Amino acid sequence: MIVVMKPDATPAQIEHMSAHIVSLGLSPQVIQGTHQTVIAALGEERPGLIEALEPGDGVEKVLPIMAPYKRASSELKRERTVVQARGLIVGGVKVAMIAGPCSVESEEQIVSLAKTLKGLGATGLRGGAFKPRTSPYSFQGHKELGLKMLATARAETGLAIVTEVMAPEHVPMMAEYADVLQIGARNMQNYQLLQAVGDSGKPALLKRGMSATIEEFLLAAEYILDRGNPNVMLCERGIRTFEDHTRFTLPLATVPYLNEKSHLPVVVDPSHGTGKARLVPAMARAAIAAGADALMLEVHDDPEHAVSDGSQTITPAVFKQVMDECRRIAHAVDRTL
Amino acid sequence: MIVVMKPDATPAQIEHMSAHIVSLGLSPQVIQGTHQTVIAALGEERPGLIEALEPGDGVEKVLPIMAPYKRASSELKRERTVVQARGLIVGGVKVAMIAGPCSVESEEQIVSLAKTLKGLGATGLRGGAFKPRTSPYSFQGHKELGLKMLATARAETGLAIVTEVMAPEHVPMMAEYADVLQIGARNMQNYQLLQAVGDSGKPALLKRGMSATIEEFLLAAEYILDRGNPNVMLCERGIRTFEDHTRFTLPLATVPYLNEKSHLPVVVDPSHGTGKARLVPAMARAAIAAGADALMLEVHDDPEHAVSDGSQTITPAVFKQVMDECRRIAHAVDRTL
Amino acid sequence: MIVVMKPDATPAQIEHMSAHIVSLGLSPQVIQGTHQTVIAALGEERPGLIEALEPGDGVEKVLPIMAPYKRASSELKRERTVVQARGLIVGGVKVAMIAGPCSVESEEQIVSLAKTLKGLGATGLRGGAFKPRTSPYSFQGHKELGLKMLATARAETGLAIVTEVMAPEHVPMMAEYADVLQIGARNMQNYQLLQAVGDSGKPALLKRGMSATIEEFLLAAEYILDRGNPNVMLCERGIRTFEDHTRFTLPLATVPYLNEKSHLPVVVDPSHGTGKARLVPAMARAAIAAGADALMLEVHDDPEHAVSDGSQTITPAVFKQVMDECRRIAHAVDRTL
Amino acid sequence: MIVVMKPDATPAQIEHMSAHIVSLGLSPQVIQGTHQTVIAALGEERPGLIEALEPGDGVEKVLPIMAPYKRASSELKRERTVVQARGLIVGGVKVAMIAGPCSVESEEQIVSLAKTLKGLGATGLRGGAFKPRTSPYSFQGHKELGLKMLATARAETGLAIVTEVMAPEHVPMMAEYADVLQIGARNMQNYQLLQAVGDSGKPALLKRGMSATIEEFLLAAEYILDRGNPNVMLCERGIRTFEDHTRFTLPLATVPYLNEKSHLPVVVDPSHGTGKARLVPAMARAAIAAGADALMLEVHDDPEHAVSDGSQTITPAVFKQVMDECRRIAHAVDRTL
Repeated sequence: MIVVMKPDATPAQIEHMSAHIVSLGLSPQVIQGTHQTVIAALGEERPGLIEALEPGDGVEKVLPIMAPYKRASSELKRERTVVQARGLIVGGVKVAMIAGPCSVESEEQIVSLAKTLKGLGATGLRGGAFKPRTSPYSFQGHKELGLKMLATARAETGLAIVTEVMAPEHVPMMAEYADVLQIGARNMQNYQLLQAVGDSGKPALLKRGMSATIEEFLLAAEYILDRGNPNVMLCERGIRTFEDHTRFTLPLATVPYLNEKSHLPVVVDPSHGTGKARLVPAMARAAIAAGADALMLEVHDDPEHAVSDGSQTITPAVFKQVMDECRRIAHAVDRTL
Repeated sequence: MIVVMKPDATPAQIEHMSAHIVSLGLSPQVIQGTHQTVIAALGEERPGLIEALEPGDGVEKVLPIMAPYKRASSELKRERTVVQARGLIVGGVKVAMIAGPCSVESEEQIVSLAKTLKGLGATGLRGGAFKPRTSPYSFQGHKELGLKMLATARAETGLAIVTEVMAPEHVPMMAEYADVLQIGARNMQNYQLLQAVGDSGKPALLKRGMSATIEEFLLAAEYILDRGNPNVMLCERGIRTFEDHTRFTLPLATVPYLNEKSHLPVVVDPSHGTGKARLVPAMARAAIAAGADALMLEVHDDPEHAVSDGSQTITPAVFKQVMDECRRIAHAVDRTL
Repeated sequence: MIVVMKPDATPAQIEHMSAHIVSLGLSPQVIQGTHQTVIAALGEERPGLIEALEPGDGVEKVLPIMAPYKRASSELKRERTVVQARGLIVGGVKVAMIAGPCSVESEEQIVSLAKTLKGLGATGLRGGAFKPRTSPYSFQGHKELGLKMLATARAETGLAIVTEVMAPEHVPMMAEYADVLQIGARNMQNYQLLQAVGDSGKPALLKRGMSATIEEFLLAAEYILDRGNPNVMLCERGIRTFEDHTRFTLPLATVPYLNEKSHLPVVVDPSHGTGKARLVPAMARAAIAAGADALMLEVHDDPEHAVSDGSQTITPAVFKQVMDECRRIAHAVDRTL
Repeated sequence: MIVVMKPDATPAQIEHMSAHIVSLGLSPQVIQGTHQTVIAALGEERPGLIEALEPGDGVEKVLPIMAPYKRASSELKRERTVVQARGLIVGGVKVAMIAGPCSVESEEQIVSLAKTLKGLGATGLRGGAFKPRTSPYSFQGHKELGLKMLATARAETGLAIVTEVMAPEHVPMMAEYADVLQIGARNMQNYQLLQAVGDSGKPALLKRGMSATIEEFLLAAEYILDRGNPNVMLCERGIRTFEDHTRFTLPLATVPYLNEKSHLPVVVDPSHGTGKARLVPAMARAAIAAGADALMLEVHDDPEHAVSDGSQTITPAVFKQVMDECRRIAHAVDRTL
């Protein structure tokens, strides 16, 4: 931690801060600069230290040195994490495809679609049973009935089920049906939920909050890891910016950055990331070229009649094209698909 | 709903969309423009309609006409809502002050501070017992013990207790101690929590998510209102932007805009909104000048030793100054404080 | 400058960086932390140092200590700058009002409006003669003819003329007619223009770029100051964020922040800052409560027939109301209007 | 243009707006909705119409239907534009590489580097002679001397010279030395400059402003096209968002979106787009996978001693690796490199 004092800080203020640093369990080292003094506070950087140091008289700003996440960091664990749920393997040489409808609508729909997707190369089946909806007047999902439909689709195809969990108290029930528990972007900082998923031990797919920094994203993962659950996938799904021609802005530099800072595998969701079906194929290709370990795509037989997210949903025919194009990109980066 | 067709849309596509609009329970009216056709879809705009219309062949874009929130709208309810919890009245002529520490630290701290704040004119006491923290390694609050401390402070001062609830299953217990249930920015779209707070009937202080649009903010309020709980306060606490000299960007135009679109009272939190104690007094004044019904401020006897949020916390001495300054501003806009 | 080395940086890398720091004319001081080494580079922080240090092997990041602006800083010049152009005085106890149409449309319009505004208390007259327009098909202004109309309005009222200059080669001509040269948000980093305005010695009103940080804003002012022109006003006019209910987001915390960091006076433009005439009065009040030295407002006799910016333009009747309300706020913060 | 009236708009207001629409040269068509009336204003949408309609009494909002750009639109010109400057061809099957230092530092440097880049497959040489710098105290470029150095490098290698022009009055001189005139992100809305570049007829590389919407970006291109210069390349170089782990956020969905809406070729700049040399290779690959026609990369023999932008600059060795990787991606999308 570096405490930058104001240019007109008094010796008494510098002394006070040094003592304050000692009282916080750190060791101060005063550095006399040309214009102002800085105090290096040596020792373990804990959360809360910045906030304890900033209010000090004569302090201009406090600069952290260390990354605040530990278990998610590639410094702590050098070998890359591979998350496996049935045939869905994320983090290996093979790029994985998780596909399916936004919402589970009926058993017939999900089983038939699952068979198609399986045939085209998907290894994970996504589908919402509990739906977080911006409006209370929107379809909220078939709930446990939807989970049963997903389980049937799994029984018929062997695809791993990826579905969103919205509340801590649902985790045990969800864990019975799902192979991967998805934590949605809106819940990325729902800490009770993160801890419950951590406790479940189930593979988790954690979506980045739409305005979360990478540090906050990794700290959210830390909540799961900290409960002893190492099976975390990080999913970039687009951030909120001033851009209005897409639903979100999909920042693919997240992929190589996370690959450098963390050992956790990275999934990209070009459906939410763009909000436009027409842009999905290009961004799917780009995500794999950037180093993504898996993609998550919304696919529906008839987007016009999907109960949710039709605008960003591709048809099985387009999914087939995406698979073909992405396979070529995967090979170009020495991976398979 | 206005469906804008592409300039090269075919008559068959226009006909298909008209039929699709009928099948969705709306009435289509085709308007032949100079360059392209638009179809007005007349009738009640429900959530999901845009997504059902956008995937249609030949569709360029779909423009909603009506606001998606109903119960929060000033069109549905003309007279302004006043929320009352003990002596804390938000929405009347008198501007209310909710003040207190970020976290409840000890009974002695909270009781002593509550007395000071009461003496200076606050009518609400804020204080976190359950703390949502970005890092799992941060202090997570004294939990129920903290609630008991708050209750003691109330017994001694009569201040209404405003405290954050983090999980639906905590609501019944929280409701026993708290006068106002606060829903934090990170949980603005935690729908289970919104519904539980709605069901409790308790006054709710709903913080705007840091990247929520006003429409999303009002739809989150709608979740609470829709459960029959009319006692909702909207709290602007800053949004995430590219600005880096403040912790968040506090957009005060939210205040007159919400006052126009909604009947719900508006609270402003200049502490989180700036993240810098030095900027709090100016933004407190500005919020009242813009029309805020209440302020929410972090105050601590010794910010340097606060367990959380020291950087943005003011001392009781500064709070006194803020009260004096804000009282003058309140009078200048024909209100009291 | 603080150079943070990676946790696995080798002694050779640390030594190399120390030597590199010396070669850049700074003095290195190595600090051995618990997890990683940081090197303080003592001496004058020049632009370009971060970029010279960051590519070094073993470097994780480089943290600057000093603010990069000098002449705009309140550290260099303690007393506050007051800019005067005829009766327009910005930076004193009295809050100044600069008002007028977006574009100068005709001599009759501008003279008549100027008289009205003068009668209501404005001391500056804004009006565009050269208009920066997003589309090449929009009205581009009456150019020099417009300047002559402004000069006539000044002759009739004594109001100081504030008008935008768009190109360095226009500066000499503009300087003949205008009392204050406005640099628009889109040109905040048009360095040739900043230097030309600096060389002119004319009072300058510098608008913040819509995505400029405060540091970049003050560095743009530095370009003018560095040419020996001390008469610079800083104008907050809103930034671009994800918000879509206003044209821009008007971040008023800029006002107290600039008042702390700089000696230059601060102007706020609630017309562009909101893009909505209905929100202008509240934000005008809030700006003064936050400490603004002047407001800049778009006023037109008939906004519906204004050639530009009608949506955000208020009528003289509303301007009168704004003046009355703002006068009360000004008194509440010990100023006049 | 769709004029949405407020739910409580009176018949007189609706009639007034219809007449106003007629007076603007459009034809009104009133549509009676369930809750509110909308008026379709049929005819050519010109700039300024929204602003003329929004201030009307009883108007809630105005929704444009048509895109405001014409000449840049793929609707007006179906075949894709190919821009050629010597051997640099942007827009064909072959992906082009424009590489070089941020600033031209010396003749020896630029000639030697140009030879290396040419040998590795670049067809364009970038290098700044006039440098837009955030701080007036930064190196501002060798100016005309730098242009002469670039011309020498071209004479030795045949590479096309791409260099930034900063002021309209420089255009004629720049046009003598440069093959492509680059308009920087900060100048994207410097309309005098756009027009001067348009008048020159020289190929133009237009960088997206860091907070420009796609519509504003295409309207800036329109300024050049409107002067009769069809040789415009659109360059995505990253936008300003809340993300702080990269210098900018590089939104690659821009590439397929522009490819759909416009016939102009698209260049991506991963150096500025990330600000981090380590992230450049992945984003270079992703850009080509997304459909970019060319890349623009900062390369320097010794980034640590570059006079500017060292942090985001790759070495020739890394550039060779980027070329090899990108060539494989190009083949995977049926292109060459």
